[in-house]
Order: sequence, then C-alpha cells, then structure tokens
Amino acid sequence: MNVIDLNCDMGESFGAYSIGMDDQVMKYISSANIACGWHAGDPLVMNKTVKLAAENNVGIGAHPGYPDLLGFGRRNMFCTKEEIQQYIIYQVGALAAFCRVHQTKLTHVKPHGALYLEAVENETTARAIAQGIMALDPNLYFVALAGKKGETMRRMGEELGLKVVYEAFPDRAYTPGGTLVSRKQPKAVISDPDEVAQRALDMAKGFVTAVDGSTIKLDVQTLCVHGDTLGAVNLVKTIREVLGANDIKVLPMGEGS
Amino acid sequence: MNVIDLNCDMGESFGAYSIGMDDQVMKYISSANIACGWHAGDPLVMNKTVKLAAENNVGIGAHPGYPDLLGFGRRNMFCTKEEIQQYIIYQVGALAAFCRVHQTKLTHVKPHGALYLEAVENETTARAIAQGIMALDPNLYFVALAGKKGETMRRMGEELGLKVVYEAFPDRAYTPGGTLVSRKQPKAVISDPDEVAQRALDMAKGFVTAVDGSTIKLDVQTLCVHGDTLGAVNLVKTIREVLGANDIKVLPMGEGS
Amino acid sequence: MNVIDLNCDMGESFGAYSIGMDDQVMKYISSANIACGWHAGDPLVMNKTVKLAAENNVGIGAHPGYPDLLGFGRRNMFCTKEEIQQYIIYQVGALAAFCRVHQTKLTHVKPHGALYLEAVENETTARAIAQGIMALDPNLYFVALAGKKGETMRRMGEELGLKVVYEAFPDRAYTPGGTLVSRKQPKAVISDPDEVAQRALDMAKGFVTAVDGSTIKLDVQTLCVHGDTLGAVNLVKTIREVLGANDIKVLPMGEGS
Amino acid sequence: MNVIDLNCDMGESFGAYSIGMDDQVMKYISSANIACGWHAGDPLVMNKTVKLAAENNVGIGAHPGYPDLLGFGRRNMFCTKEEIQQYIIYQVGALAAFCRVHQTKLTHVKPHGALYLEAVENETTARAIAQGIMALDPNLYFVALAGKKGETMRRMGEELGLKVVYEAFPDRAYTPGGTLVSRKQPKAVISDPDEVAQRALDMAKGFVTAVDGSTIKLDVQTLCVHGDTLGAVNLVKTIREVLGANDIKVLPMGEGS
Repeated sequence: MNVIDLNCDMGESFGAYSIGMDDQVMKYISSANIACGWHAGDPLVMNKTVKLAAENNVGIGAHPGYPDLLGFGRRNMFCTKEEIQQYIIYQVGALAAFCRVHQTKLTHVKPHGALYLEAVENETTARAIAQGIMALDPNLYFVALAGKKGETMRRMGEELGLKVVYEAFPDRAYTPGGTLVSRKQPKAVISDPDEVAQRALDMAKGFVTAVDGSTIKLDVQTLCVHGDTLGAVNLVKTIREVLGANDIKVLPMGEGS
Repeated sequence: MNVIDLNCDMGESFGAYSIGMDDQVMKYISSANIACGWHAGDPLVMNKTVKLAAENNVGIGAHPGYPDLLGFGRRNMFCTKEEIQQYIIYQVGALAAFCRVHQTKLTHVKPHGALYLEAVENETTARAIAQGIMALDPNLYFVALAGKKGETMRRMGEELGLKVVYEAFPDRAYTPGGTLVSRKQPKAVISDPDEVAQRALDMAKGFVTAVDGSTIKLDVQTLCVHGDTLGAVNLVKTIREVLGANDIKVLPMGEGS
Repeated sequence: MNVIDLNCDMGESFGAYSIGMDDQVMKYISSANIACGWHAGDPLVMNKTVKLAAENNVGIGAHPGYPDLLGFGRRNMFCTKEEIQQYIIYQVGALAAFCRVHQTKLTHVKPHGALYLEAVENETTARAIAQGIMALDPNLYFVALAGKKGETMRRMGEELGLKVVYEAFPDRAYTPGGTLVSRKQPKAVISDPDEVAQRALDMAKGFVTAVDGSTIKLDVQTLCVHGDTLGAVNLVKTIREVLGANDIKVLPMGEGS
Repeated sequence: MNVIDLNCDMGESFGAYSIGMDDQVMKYISSANIACGWHAGDPLVMNKTVKLAAENNVGIGAHPGYPDLLGFGRRNMFCTKEEIQQYIIYQVGALAAFCRVHQTKLTHVKPHGALYLEAVENETTARAIAQGIMALDPNLYFVALAGKKGETMRRMGEELGLKVVYEAFPDRAYTPGGTLVSRKQPKAVISDPDEVAQRALDMAKGFVTAVDGSTIKLDVQTLCVHGDTLGAVNLVKTIREVLGANDIKVLPMGEGS
C-alpha cells in the first residue's frame, strides 16, 4: 500500500493581520509548515498553530524565511552562507520551543518562498540551510524539490546526512524533463480540482503526466497543497478523498516507512 | 566556603552595530545573559556569544525583552499576559537552539530592561514570564531581584515551582529597607571600583551597607555586573580579584550548591 | 446649514496582509486617516490610499502610531516627549510625500490607537504630538477627542496654536458627563445602524443622548466611522444618507467653515 | 576656479546603537547623505543630523536604502520597480520633513549600499529610484556614479530630467577604462592620506591616475568620503586642506555653478 504526505504552509498570520484558513485545512493535511516570525507568523500564532497541528495529529515543520515581513519572504536577499545558517537555527529553534511546550515533536524543515527558490538554484544556499538544520537536530526531515530541478537541493541535504523528503506540486504543470513549468507560462497552474486530485494520486504512485502528455517518473514523498482560500481548502479535501478512495494512506513524514 | 555568581548582559550587538566588550568581560564573569534578537542581538551574534560563553565555561542565560529594537527594550509596553508568555517562549527557544548547536546547555533566564522592571512592579507580568519559562523547561533558573522590592517577582517564580536566583547590584545604593535607591537620586550609582568590589564581597556574604550606614541582610546568589566600557570591564576584573582573595568562589548558577 | 466631517482609518494593509475595505468606504467618508508604516501601512499602500482619497475628494490625514506593527499600535509604549515628537514628524512627513506626488494636500493628523488614548490621558504626550505637527506644518488640523475627557488633548493643541478638530464616536455610548462609556461596560458600543445614524445626526447638530437618557451638548466637527467589514461600510453609507436627508453637508475638515 | 563637493554618509546611528563620528566629520564636508530609518538611522538621529548639517552649512541629502536594518542595507533585495519607487518616496519624504522643521532645504538623494550598487548594474532599479525622486521633487539632485560604469545610472536620471551629480571615490583605485577596481582585488582601496588627498585634487580637476599609471578623464562633481573612524575623519580633514591649498572650493551640490 502506498503512502504520501500532504504538506501545507500554516501560521502565516501576524498580529492583527490574518492570512489563511488554518482551522479548516488542518483537518485534511498530514504536515504543517509553520512560519517562524520572520517573513510571517508571530509567537502567539506559532503557539496556536503548533497546538492545532498537534490536536489534529499533523506533523509539525518549521517554515523559516528571509527577514522580510514587508515582502512576505518572497523576495530574494543576498545573504551569506553564515547568515542563512544562523537564521535557520534561530527560526527553527523558536518553533521547536513551542513544540516542547505542547509536548509534541518538530518533524521537518521546509524553507519558505524566495529562500526555497534560491536553495533550488544555488548550491551554497541549499548547503547553508542543510547545515543549519544538521547543526540543530540531524533527525529533522529536510523538504526539497522533487524532480530534476531539485537535484542540487536534495544532494546538499543528503551529502550532509540529512533525511531529505522529496516534494511535488499537484497543481503545477511539469515539463517532460521533470521540472516545473514556469509560472510565466500560460498553463503553469492547474485549477480544476478533479485534475489536481488525479495528479496528486499519480504523484503518490510515483509518476506525473507532463505538458506534452508523456508520463514521467517522479520520486515523491510529500505533496504541497494550499489553504489560503475556501476554494483551496475544498481542493485539499478533494485530494484527500481521492487518495483515500485509492488506498493511498496520508501520513506525516517518516510515518509511512 | 561561599559561592557567588557574576552575571552580565552580553550579545547586544546587532547587524553592523556593535555594543559591549564581550570578548573582554567574558573572562571574568560566570553567567552571561544573552540577548535574543528582539530588543538587541541577532542570530550571528547569538551564535558567537553562546560559543564564547561555552569556551569560557560561563553559564548561559536567555535575556528576552520587549519587541522594541528602537528602544533597546528599555521602554515599557503594555503587553497582555498571553503575549509576554509566548514572547518568552519564542526568545528563550531561539537562544536554546544555539546552545544545542554548541552542545552546551541553557542555564537561566533573566528578563531584560523594561520587562524586568515591569516584572518587579507587576505580578501579572512576573507570572507570565515565569509561566513561559516553566512551560518550556522547568529546570531553567529564573533570575529575580533580591531584597524587599523583588518579593513579588520571586514569589511568582517560586509558586510555579521554578528555581529562582536572587540578584543584587553591587554598584547600586540600597535603602535601609533593602530596596534599590532610585536612579533619580544623587548617589544611586556607585562608581568607585574598590567600593563596588567591597560591596560585591559583602553581598556574597549575605549583607549590604545601606545609604544610612546600617547593615542589612540580603539573600543573594548572583551579582549583576556590566561590560559595555573598558572601565566596566576593569571593574568586573577588580570584583573578581577581591572575591577570589577572600575565598569566595565565582560559579555559574546552580554549580555552587 | 450644518456641516460635519466623517473620518475613517484607512491604508492599514501591510505587504501581503490586507485589512479594511478601503475601496468601498472611501465613497462615503470625507476624511481618511492614513497609516504611515509604523503600526500599519507601507509605502505601496500609502501611495495607493492617498491616490484613492484624492480621486474621491476625501481629505487626507496622517495617522501616526507607535513603532509596534506586531501590536498594531494598540499597546501603550513609554516613549519620551522627544521620541513622540520626532516619530510624529517622521510619519507625517512620509505621508505628506505621497500627497506631493499626487499633487494633493495633507489636511490633518490624527494619532492612532494607544498613542491617541495616551494623548487623552497624558498632557505630555498630547503636547509632544502637537509640537511635532506644529514644527512640521502649523496649518495641519489636529484631531482631538470631543467632550470633557478630551479637554487636555485639545488644550495642548490649541495652546500651541494648532487648529484642533473635535471628534466624536456615533457608535459609542456617552456618560451624562460627556465622556465615552468604557468598552468594558455592557452597552459601550452601539451596533444598530439606524440608532448610530441618528446619533451621528444629533452630533452633527451639537448634542448627544447619554446613557441615562439625558441630552448633553457636544461640540463636534468630525465623526469617526469604521470601514473594516462589509457591515461597517453599510453603516457608513446609512450615516451618510441620514445626514444628507437632513441637510447636513459632509465635508472634509476646514471646508465647512 | 574649480569647485567640488565632499559628500559623506551620516546619521547611521539607531536607537542605543552608535555608528560614525558625525560631529567631527561634519566640519569638513559640504554634503551629508542622511540615513532615513530603513537600513540605518531613526527619527531622533535624523532630526539631530539635519540640525547639525544645517548649523555647519552642509548640504542635506536623503540616503534611502533597502528595508534591511539587520543587513545595514548592504544586501541586495529583489524588489519590484514599484516597490523601489515608493520606498524612495517614503524615505526621502520622511527626511524632507526634518528639513522643513529646521527651516532648511533638502538638496540631494543618494541611494545607499546595495541599492546604489544595484542601480549601477540595473537600468530598472536606476529608473525606479529616479522616478521616485522626480515624482516627489524634480529639483533634487540625484547622485550617480561617475565614469564608464555609471553611465546607465546617470542616463536613467538625465532622461527623466533630473539634475544628476557625478560621484567619484578618491580612496578607490580606477581601471584604465574608468571603472572602479573591484574590492576583491588587492589594491582596490588606497589608504595613504596624502595619496588619497592628491587623488581628490586630481578628481576635482577632472582626471584620475588609473592602476596602470595612465591618466584618464573623469567628469566629477562630488567626492565620497568616510567618517566612521578617527582615521577617516583625519583623512577628510587632509583632503579638505589639500583642496583649499590648491584653490579648489568645497561647496554643496548646486552651489558651485
């Protein structure tokens, strides 16, 4: 029987500002990537989100980003290797504290936004993130991009001895080469719930249909889903149902093996 | 033989901004209160300061403050009990991460600046801080003001079951009632190194001479010293020498008993 | 014929975070208090909101607050007189720049949240705000609380020579003494749209019905309304209609005299 | 008789953190680039620095940077054109407010650190900065890099109709092609005061000696000097004396023509 993880960014509210439908989406996912107060989130939100995840038996991950609340961590910043490593330790450590408070454990780390994208492109950034995680806790899973494009990021984690979890995006189109179609292209994002759910099922089985109709292999352990709108939440629910109907178990990272 | 701890605020630099003579003062103290990035400090500074403390066998404490870098945490902010508790968990957790990275342990928590002063005045604030520490790790020492004025703060910690460490200030004048003379008064701060060192010695022995010449009892386990100027560092050195010459051992919190 | 101003807090979104229904409410108000990037707002939001106000012939005001984005400026901070004065100059100056860019003028300043409340209570704070405004531009209107409770704030502005505009809250209950009923009291906030609109009309005519049924005089030039929910926007619309149906002209500060 | 401007970054202190010897260096320069609170500086520092500059008849400029206090504005951030333009308006507007308060005028704008370097490399960034300045006040001078490398930046300013001031660095080595030798090269920075002063004199006369000994023409109206150490201040003093001894007048931007 196949197993897959559904991960979603959570805890992105900040002070008086609210983003996301965390209460709703937490019911359908198996892993939550929780913002750590730098690009989003704050201590009250982190506390509440960790608690909510624990109550729903959802695996808890840190979602560290650049120090850029104004840009929601979506803008690349030229940080040194040393800066990135220490920023990771700080943010992951802060989130881990809330896990201790709620007597649950921190399972994984997934870099956020521009930091994730830079880790895909840039070996130095990927290694700095991995080193930060490794220095703090070698048992943490490191979420990295599945497919050809994610090779560098995954290799940086694996060379250091981290357990790397391969992530794919069921709502994104893939090239025959196994990379994501750029968001600048017309059909980069797939919005039909049934189609996305079918792709999630395919990915859980180890393959995906590329834009040219060819079937490509894709080694995937976690699928990234969204929870910022009601439509997004319903999509996650659909994915979950389709996976269940096809005997794919949805479990947090590390619990499927 | 008597034992006392010498604690000093450390790691208050931020990005390109430098404050304090940490390298110098670290040789003479036994506990470092390290800023956690909210009122001062940043991940690189935290990492470096934890490492420096560990290398010098100095006990490591978190020094959490209000979210007010612009005011260096010296301005009171009307935060709720819930806010204070979660801010403590976040900041202490972030510092604890750097301790794990350097395979050393976090020993104590001392609130910074206006947060400390508010905890002295306000039972709710003191309890919120203590609850944050307790929720995270009940083995952490909670540094609280010695003397009459510090009763509320100490009680809040002790009622929760925290190990409270009583702190006095050898360079500050005390009233016959055992409280600090307000800084607004002319002779509130003592600057003569020999006098301060003598007072440190007295405090280590359990008493202090008040402004009226009377000798009052003061239950003290840690003395707060400063390291922001060359003069301050020399003063700490003098205190350390005078304590040593009088067979008072200087040890981190918890190592003397 | 009577004239009144309807003012509303605007431009409180920040980066990826959205608050308020500015596009909707801007049609019904005559003055916008625009956040200046410290407790809320950012340069893009300020630019957009100034443009929107100008297009709707709405008077533009700066809405400066404490440096506390995390607390949305709703927590009191113990700032010095000097700090408050310079914070006002900085924030009002930044907003004035966007007015110049859009070839419109800055009309008024209304302190936000905890800074406003502190100005009501504390003469030093009120004077520091007024001095900041005066130093920058003596032609700016200073919005201050109407009624007995607002006397200090208004006097501080008027003593310096500022043009002070008296503000009342149609959705808040008033005591027979002419002060706001505390929000901790059960009927402090009035939610029925017709009742609020009637009170707005009364206020425009110079009086208000207190909680004991007595009618008290209230010297008012501007009414504070809200625009953060659809219900709030509809309430503003109702107020505007009732004022219009009763020959009360709704005009920005200074345009009615 | 020749005229040159000496500009220096000023007002980079923040809260309790102090950087630079502004009081000393202000006596020898003719233009101050004052930080605007984003990468450095705060309202109190801005107020004090504007006052100090005005008292010394030093031309006042805004020195806007990226929203990155932690990185002191020295790290490139991928901002959109719209973001950069509005960030410029915000920061320059805030500084202009302090000029109004001190009844003096804002003369110029010089982007700081990574924003300056990006403007040199990237036409879009350079234009966005120039558009922000233009939208706010077309009379402000725009400081741009002199020499071949600065062509794009200068052209973006000039095409929009801004008055562009060409800036050179007397303590930096130049290639025969008229560009700065990279800091990664061994002799990129010149530290001998007499040599730097001679180069400043040459630049004021319109030329510079390149690393290969050749003399190249360089159209320059302002020279960038530093004031962060006692040595730097003495260097500025030496430059000023050498210029004076050679009948080169040191005047703020725009006052020489």
